[in-house]
This record gives sequence, C-alpha cells and structure tokens, in this order.
Amino acid sequence: MITRNRVESRDLTIGIVGLGYVGLPTALGFHDAGFNVIGLDISERVINSLKRGENPGDDPAFDGAIPTDEKWNITLNPSEAVPFCDVVIVTVPTPVLDDHRPDLRFVKSAGVSIFENITREKRPVVVLESTVYPGVTREIWGPLLEKYELEEGRDVDLAYCPERFVPGDPEHGVRQVPRVVGANDSGVCAALADLYSTLTTGEVHPVSSIEVAEAAKVVENVQRDLNIALVNELALIFPEIGIDVEEVLSAAATKWNFHRYTPGIGVGGHCIPVDPYYLIQKATAAGAPVDLISSARSVNANMPKQVATRILNNAAKLGRTPNNLKILLLGWSYKPGIADVRETPSEPLASALIEAGSKVYVWDPFIQKDELQDAPVIWVESPIDVSADVVVLCTAHQVVLEIDWKELRDTSELGLFYDGRRVVNMNDLRNAGWITAGVGYP
Amino acid sequence: MITRNRVESRDLTIGIVGLGYVGLPTALGFHDAGFNVIGLDISERVINSLKRGENPGDDPAFDGAIPTDEKWNITLNPSEAVPFCDVVIVTVPTPVLDDHRPDLRFVKSAGVSIFENITREKRPVVVLESTVYPGVTREIWGPLLEKYELEEGRDVDLAYCPERFVPGDPEHGVRQVPRVVGANDSGVCAALADLYSTLTTGEVHPVSSIEVAEAAKVVENVQRDLNIALVNELALIFPEIGIDVEEVLSAAATKWNFHRYTPGIGVGGHCIPVDPYYLIQKATAAGAPVDLISSARSVNANMPKQVATRILNNAAKLGRTPNNLKILLLGWSYKPGIADVRETPSEPLASALIEAGSKVYVWDPFIQKDELQDAPVIWVESPIDVSADVVVLCTAHQVVLEIDWKELRDTSELGLFYDGRRVVNMNDLRNAGWITAGVGYP
Repeated sequence: MITRNRVESRDLTIGIVGLGYVGLPTALGFHDAGFNVIGLDISERVINSLKRGENPGDDPAFDGAIPTDEKWNITLNPSEAVPFCDVVIVTVPTPVLDDHRPDLRFVKSAGVSIFENITREKRPVVVLESTVYPGVTREIWGPLLEKYELEEGRDVDLAYCPERFVPGDPEHGVRQVPRVVGANDSGVCAALADLYSTLTTGEVHPVSSIEVAEAAKVVENVQRDLNIALVNELALIFPEIGIDVEEVLSAAATKWNFHRYTPGIGVGGHCIPVDPYYLIQKATAAGAPVDLISSARSVNANMPKQVATRILNNAAKLGRTPNNLKILLLGWSYKPGIADVRETPSEPLASALIEAGSKVYVWDPFIQKDELQDAPVIWVESPIDVSADVVVLCTAHQVVLEIDWKELRDTSELGLFYDGRRVVNMNDLRNAGWITAGVGYP
Repeated sequence: MITRNRVESRDLTIGIVGLGYVGLPTALGFHDAGFNVIGLDISERVINSLKRGENPGDDPAFDGAIPTDEKWNITLNPSEAVPFCDVVIVTVPTPVLDDHRPDLRFVKSAGVSIFENITREKRPVVVLESTVYPGVTREIWGPLLEKYELEEGRDVDLAYCPERFVPGDPEHGVRQVPRVVGANDSGVCAALADLYSTLTTGEVHPVSSIEVAEAAKVVENVQRDLNIALVNELALIFPEIGIDVEEVLSAAATKWNFHRYTPGIGVGGHCIPVDPYYLIQKATAAGAPVDLISSARSVNANMPKQVATRILNNAAKLGRTPNNLKILLLGWSYKPGIADVRETPSEPLASALIEAGSKVYVWDPFIQKDELQDAPVIWVESPIDVSADVVVLCTAHQVVLEIDWKELRDTSELGLFYDGRRVVNMNDLRNAGWITAGVGYP
C-alpha cells in the first residue's frame, strides 16, 4: 500500500500503462525522481524502441533521454509488470467515436490487464489519468474489480488524477502542470499527492473523491468551450453591426479581469468538444438544467457551418457560385503545431463546402493522408499546386503562417482569402493582391 | 480643440458633469494632474458642500481632499461652466428601469445642458463615461447636435470612454484602472488617450470608433454574466449527483487558465444584468444569433427563484411548509460593502419566498428603508429581533460575516441556515447548532 513514508523514501515500484505522449514523460519523471519504474505498452514497436534505449515518438525532447539502468524496466507483458507494482498509472488514449462519445475500450482493456495481474497483498493503487467524465472510473473498473474478486480498500485502491499536459507547449509538460487527485481512501489520496509532487513543480491538489477529480477535469473543458463559444457568437454578431469583433475583444482585454479568447472556425480535440456532452448527459439524467452548457456546445459545433456560409457569401459577392469554386483549406489538425485530427472543425467545414458543390483541397504537412478521415477532400502536397479560387486558413501552423502569400496569389484567379483563425495581418494580404475576409470581420 | 500638445502643456479646461462616485474622483484627478477643472452637478447639496470645501459623499477618501485654489471651480449652472470648456466629461448615473432598460434621461439632460452652452469656436470634445450600449452615444446626442445646429467634427467632437471604476475597491479606482477611448476623430481620440493617461496609471487604449468603445464595455459585462451563469448552472447540476460545486471549482482553479467564479443567488448592479439585454436587442435587430448570451442571462435571472425553491425544499424536509416560515435575509445590496440596490437578486428572491407564503425580513445596515423598492419585506434593525426560522445569507457584507451565529441561533426555533454566497464555514455554523444548506451543496 502506498504511504507518505514510502513516497518519501522512494520505496515504491510504479507501473505506467500506455507509453504515449503522456505516459512516457510520466515514466521518465518518476524514474528521475528515484522510483523503480516499469513501463508497459501494447505496441511492440514502442517497446522495442524503448528496450534499445531509443525514443519511440516524434518529440525530440526524448532523444537520448531513455534510461538504461536497473530502475527502468520496459515490457509488453502485463504479468511481468503489474504483480510488482505498488502504484499503477494508466495513461492510455481516449479517442473520440463518431457520435462524440469517448472510446473507453483502452481504459477497459488496460483495467483487465491490471486487475487480473494484481498482487493483492501489495494493495496497489490504480490511478487513471485519461480524460473521462464524472463516474467513469468506477463505472468501467468497478465491474472488473468484481470479476477478479478484488475489494476496493482492501486488495486494491482506485484513484483519478486527470492529465493536464498541453501537446506542443513545453511550459505545460507533465513536470510543470498542477494536478488534482482524488481516491477512494484519504490516506491513499494524501500519499498520491506527495507522489505527484515528486513529478511536477506545480501544485498537487487532493480532493475528497474520485468523482470530484473527474468533475474538475470536465469543468475545465466546459468552461473553455463556453468562453470560446461566447467569442464565436460575438464574431457572428458584431460584423452585422459593422464592428470588428477582434477590435472589441482587444479593447475589453485591457480590463484586468477580462478573459481573452479568439473566435475561429470551431474547436477540436478529445476534450473541449467531447466533455460537455457527458456532463449534459449526466446532468439531464439527474434532472438538472443544462441550457447554458448545451447552448455553448451548439454555438461551437455550428461554427464550421456558419463559416462555410460566410465563405460562400463572400465568393457570391464576387459573382461566383459554390459549384464553381476550388477551395483550399490550409491546415487540418484541430490546433497548431500538432498532428491531432480528433474532432477537428476543418472536417465539418470541408463537408459543408462540399455539400454546397465546391471542390475542397487540403494542405497540412503535419497530417498523413490516411488520417483525413472520411471527408471527400483532395489532399495536396503544396498549396501552390491547387490554383484555388478561395484560400481558407484553418489551422495556424507555423508553416501556414510562413506561406509566401504573393506567390500563392499568383496561382489564384479569384484571389479570395478567408482567415478562419484571425492570425494574419490583412494589410499584408491585401498588399499581396488578395480580397480578404475572416471570422468576425464586418 | 483638444490636441496632444495642449494635454502636454496642461492648456485645457475640463468640465465634469455629474459629481458622484465616478465624477468627483475624476475631477480631483484631473485637477491634481494640473488642469483647470470645472465641476457641474444638478444637486444643490453636492454643489454647496463642494463650495465649502467639504466632501459631499460618504467615501472617507475625499474628507479634506477638496481643493480651494483657482483651478478648481464648482457650479450648479451649465452656462457658467460649459462655454469655457475644451473637454466636457459626462459621468451622470444610469439607473435601471423596471423592464431592465437603463434610464438614459440623465445622459440626455446632461447633453442638453452641454450642447446649448457650447462655445463652437472652441470645438470642445464631449466624452460620455456612463454605461450605455453600442450606438447610444450618437442615438441620444445626435438629435441634440442637430437641434442646436452643431456639426460633429467642426463645432464639437463626441467620444466615449467607459468608466471601469469598481465601487468599494481601492485598487480599481479612477486613478488605477485601464481605459478604452473611442471618438469621431482619430486626432481627438489620440489626444484624449493622452489626457486620460494623466488621470490613471493604467493603460489607455484608443479604438477606431465610439461604437467599438461602447461594445467593449458591453462585452466585458456579457462575459462576466456568462461565466457567473456557468458556475450557477453547475451549482444546480453537481448537488444532484452528490458533489459540492465549490470543491470542483476550487480543484479546477488549480489549472493555470481556469477562471474562478463563485455561484450565488444571482447577479445585480446596473451593468451585468442590464448590458446583455441590449446586446441581445441590437443583435436580434441585425439578424444575428444570441442563443448563448440569452441563455446565460436566463440562468442568472432565474437563480433567485431556483434558490427560493431550494430554501423551501430544505425547510420542507424539516417538516415546515412555506406559509409557516419566517425567513430572514442577511443583506440586500447586490454586492458587499456598498449600498447599491439596483437589480439586486435579493428582491426576486424575497418575492418568490413571499409568493410561496413565507414572511420575509431583511437586515442590511447599508440600506435605508426607503431604498427597499417595492418588495413587501419587513425591515429589521437587528438580525436577532426576528426569531427567524430560516436565515439566508444574501450579501457578504463584513457586518454579516461577523454575526455571532451562536447568539442568532438561540433566537431561531427551526435553525435552518442557507448560505447564498458560499462565504461561511459550515462547520462553524453546525457547531453553533445550525442545520446548514447553501448554493451548490449536495
């Protein structure tokens, strides 16, 4: 059983299940803090890389950073890892299903691997870090405890400690971010808080239950969804009264307590567009009102369609009908600098444009062609190959911002540019010969 | 005409119309900065106090701070002030009408006093600071310019510079807060930005039009309304699934980009519950969507009723029907430490309780009895006079927080305490013998 003393004396073996972009730095962090670490993954490729001391991923931060000493153990086989662990941390992915539901199969299968291999005399604590919704830790793992005849608080403890890692942001890595931790047992929770404090320089905040920790994570994403929805709604309002929404937001942002968000074509990823649905479902089942959260979700979910309409309206003003347009989307990932396409708003934007009759091309050097999901778009290797009538900035990748707009303009007959992220200096674009438009411009 | 050079050399006479809690410190600030100041008000009492060098208000910061030199002039008569002014700043109140509309009569009558007395050769700039909604400066004053045959940009300039003063918060007084300023003329706007920089240490942010400055102020309040509405909706959801909303919010607030708000019985004042209605009206007229802003407004507007229901439910669990209850509200102002009752949520809360059949008593030492508007509540001089069954904390005035809960408990038969602001340590209350409940508790 984990105790504060055993954390203090580094007398714990920590298993990390899932060695992806969260699990690997977590494993390395606990190893650096002096713990015995066993890393577990279902990918032979990842395991073999790590066994050779090589970086299995594409983050250069881990090149040459894989340990080889006896406190660093890597295995494909749960029975070689779990029986020896005092703490098992689960950092498996939660992809998003077609109907917005998170796919919890990996959380469940990790649970099976763990609970069938536990040494109950050790009374280990199993900590879920993957993004879920309130109640899921117990809903998914509770039946497994029953199946393997494990009693919570006697043979095993459960905990939830949501990851807050920001992909692509070195200031918010696993060694910097504050954490929230909730467990079935307050002593276990206090010891886990100590344990995570050896990993991160951020505050570790214990709460009274697993469900509160789950709720905290959801609320973070719900609040973000709401605030982005507000600036998106304002981006639909102010242009109608002749005002640029970004000028208003920048002015308001001089107030000390204003929260600055930027409107755009919509939100993506496996948290912001997903978590609110679960709180909505949970609250509705409990008879509580969800009008505001639902309304925010609708605004953001509808932004791609709203933007599609505005793009086509701008083209129509230039005398062009949708079925007569080649539209190039710059960027497909849901956020800049990464290759993550989960719930990307580029997809419904493309679908709406295609449905209207336009031909849609996509350029995103971060994305492999086969990740383009089901949208019937045309993948291009270079933006200048297309001779697009309309160019839409969807993701503010650095390579997108560094496009030679003059050169690109020379390939376009119509020359309509639409800034879907409010990141381009429109004077530069106009000087390069573009007709400009964008989210929130009058 | 105002110019940056004339600001630099303090070669300007500044008139301040309305010497209340915004106008007086503004006049004093410009006087201290070295300008010739003329203060104007319609209250003989205020003018006479100031002429005697006395503080006309109840803010002790101005005791002994009223100047007597020749650069400080005070008058009741617009014709003794306006003709000499290069800048006229309007800081008249905007009360709230019964239907939530701001009462703009003072803005209009100040406009009449100003525009009929202007020296057009001076081309003064008239700056509105009162809270309005986008378009109002020109809507209210435009017809007056026409009436007095004044041409904007030739005889007079117009500007809007929203006040951001926080009543009761010395860190956000007129000499500290950042400002936004918009004018009909960019040279005038730049000079006004310089002028306000002599008043405040905060950033002064010029924008491209009067309408953008008006919109910025509205958006600040709309965003605040929205974020408070979210925590209020969450305060209705989480108790239904057995979770204390404040524990969740405190945990989420350990994240670097989370915005911490506290749920309560509702919002008040002349900004947050008012401005969104105007943006809603303006946007709807322009055909733009307002679902999210409207939804937030509804959540906050309904909180007093929601809280009333929960208070009565708690009493019902103790076997008491509404028509058998004496309920004491602690606090009537919309926020702590001030006497402002505009749009206070205490009023609809009281009305809902009275409608259900309860007797409602109010204790608020900040408020004069005649400010209690139309609510048929019973005003008390001390909380212990009532022998209330239920005590509801509505405003977290310091005097409320310092109540001797044990002593108050001894006067109550039922002993039900409801924390409408989440500011009281419930353990202390329970130790004092209270049955406790509150916004967002399970």
